[in-house]
Parts: sequence; C-alpha cells; structure tokens
Amino acid sequence: MHYPQHLQKLIEILKKLPGVGAKSAERFAFQLLSWPGEKLQEMACIIGETPQRLSHCDQCGCLIETACPLCSSPTRSPHLMCVVASSKDIFLIEQTHAFKGLYHALGGLLSPLKDEAPTQEAIEKLKIRAQTLGVKEMILALDSTLEGDATALLLKKEMENSGVTLSRLALGLPMGSSLDFIDGGTLARALAGRNIY
Amino acid sequence: MHYPQHLQKLIEILKKLPGVGAKSAERFAFQLLSWPGEKLQEMACIIGETPQRLSHCDQCGCLIETACPLCSSPTRSPHLMCVVASSKDIFLIEQTHAFKGLYHALGGLLSPLKDEAPTQEAIEKLKIRAQTLGVKEMILALDSTLEGDATALLLKKEMENSGVTLSRLALGLPMGSSLDFIDGGTLARALAGRNIY
Repeated sequence: MHYPQHLQKLIEILKKLPGVGAKSAERFAFQLLSWPGEKLQEMACIIGETPQRLSHCDQCGCLIETACPLCSSPTRSPHLMCVVASSKDIFLIEQTHAFKGLYHALGGLLSPLKDEAPTQEAIEKLKIRAQTLGVKEMILALDSTLEGDATALLLKKEMENSGVTLSRLALGLPMGSSLDFIDGGTLARALAGRNIY
Repeated sequence: MHYPQHLQKLIEILKKLPGVGAKSAERFAFQLLSWPGEKLQEMACIIGETPQRLSHCDQCGCLIETACPLCSSPTRSPHLMCVVASSKDIFLIEQTHAFKGLYHALGGLLSPLKDEAPTQEAIEKLKIRAQTLGVKEMILALDSTLEGDATALLLKKEMENSGVTLSRLALGLPMGSSLDFIDGGTLARALAGRNIY
C-alpha cells in the first residue's frame, strides 16, 4: 500500500529542503500531520508570503523587509567594503560585531566544476558601486574553498588598476581547535600567516 | 543586526520540525528564499490543505484520502489484527508485504516517564473492534522500547480472558530502536518470527 497521494506530495516537497532525504521527509510529514490545522495554516502563510515580505537590497544585496538598515546607516564607513557570496554571510559577519563598513553580496561564487559564476553584470555592479562609494579597501570574505579562491582571483583581476586595496579573510586555526585535528593545508597556511606575539 | 522579522518567523516555524535545530532551520529558510514564488506557493498549499485532504480511518486509524483501502479490502483476514502505535507504522509494515490481516492504530504508546497513554476510550474501541471482527490473534507491533513494553503489558492485561491470542514482533529488532528507523527486511523477519505473548 502506498502513502495517500497528498501525503506523498507533502513528502516530496519536504525532500527538496537541503540535506533532507526520504526518511527525514517522512518524519517531517508525519510530524506536520500531528499539528493542529491552525499551525499548518500559519506555516503555509509564512512560506507562501515570503516572496512578498522579503526582498534584496538593490545596493548591497542584503535580505530586507523595508529599507536596508546597513546601506542607510550613517555610522558605517562607505570606504570599507566587505564582499560576500550571499546575503546569509552578511548576517554571519554582523553577528561578530567586528566590521563597520558596507557589504556587497555577489549572489554566488565562481564554480569551475559546476560551470557557475557571478554574472558579468554582477561584477560590473560591484565595480560601479565601489567607485561611487569611494571604497578604499575591499575585504573578500569568501569561503576558503576552490570556488572562493577562484572568485577572489577573478575579482583581483577585475579590480586591477582601480586603486582599491583588496584583502582576504585570514586563513588559520579555528578558535578552540587542537593541532591534532587540523588538516595539513590549514596548518601550513596558519604557519605562513603567523603573527608576531 | 537581526534577521528581518519575516525571516525570523520562517526560521522559528521550521525549527518546530523534528530534529531541526537553529542551524538547520536557517539553512532550510535560506534555501526556501532561493525558490521561485510559485514553488513556495505550491509548498504552502500542500501544507495548508493537509487537514482537508487527509484524515484517519475511523475503524483502523490509518491515514486516508477517501475510503480506507485496508478496512474495505475483501482479501484481508479480519481474524488477524496488527496493533500499532500510529498510522505511520501501518505503512512501514505494509511495505514488507508480510502481513495480510487488519490493522489497528492505538494513537500513542503508554509512556510512564512522560505520563502519556492511549486513552481508556482507545483501548475500549480496540476491544470492541476485536470482538466485532472475531479476531483470533492480535499481533502487537510496538517499538521494542520501555514505552512499547509498557503498552504491550497493558494490552495483555486488558485482553485477558477475551479468548484472543496475543503475540509480539520477534526481537529481531535491535534493542532500543524505534520502528521509524528499521529497514523492511528486519521488520519482515520480526513479523514472521513473532512470539506468543
């Protein structure tokens, strides 16, 4: 006996969430079935209204409901720009309270294997925005992966002769890590980037 | 900077799914944000319509869309009844093709620690249904956990002197596991090797 058709549809759509396989989707679906109708309605509303309620700032690309609190802030330096892959990274960096400039979300990383890249349009937009704001330093806060490295290299080439200093996040040991569990690549980069103590 | 309010609401409701913590809920939410509006609408519809589209069979408790395919089947023996905790377990057992009787979902297990139990009403309903159908053997297909054991014991006491033979799934199940995580092969073996209780 198969699941009723509607249950199967529910499982199929839940399986589209990242990292959710058949077993997890079934568990989610049966959990949803145990919820009262109002709670299901509430979830349906929140999901369905998302495109109307959330948008991307047309300047920095951050997720916003109304005006962008970052771009409209008078206290943030327009001369320091942090370039990230996606708007999610903006929230991660904001949680550190360690950056007081403006952000720019690229909307993706160059992926030589998947044949994906930030569009030429996105790169032009970044260049024009950097020039308009009078950016002096551009921090590339990109993943330390093949894709992040490829994107950094592309941006370095694109920003050549623009007068903007490019920097990347330091590579080294994660906080609280033990040398035992660090891979050789990280250790080598941490050694090369050592600081005077 | 906090997440926009609507995004926070989306994360909060996704966190209510079983086994989903803050990090997973954020990943799910950002994945949903990348979906086109129609796909979000589709998901919202499927979730919101669930209470209207799915119901429980008033005889066996199985999840159904229209008529119960199990209770209305002329080929299934009414003298053999499989008692399960919830309707999800019915689908798991059906997948093994190892059982050709009727089911009865209790709607929960006796949980001495959480002070939960199938209601007295649910137990009375089971007794009346067993009598009406002329059940000869009742297979208790319950988790091999404290809760499953406690429920089996309760049912054994309730069915005393009823003339119904009670049996339990063979302990081919790994101890302490829940039916959710059992593969079909193990479940079929446990069903075939059931012991008189």
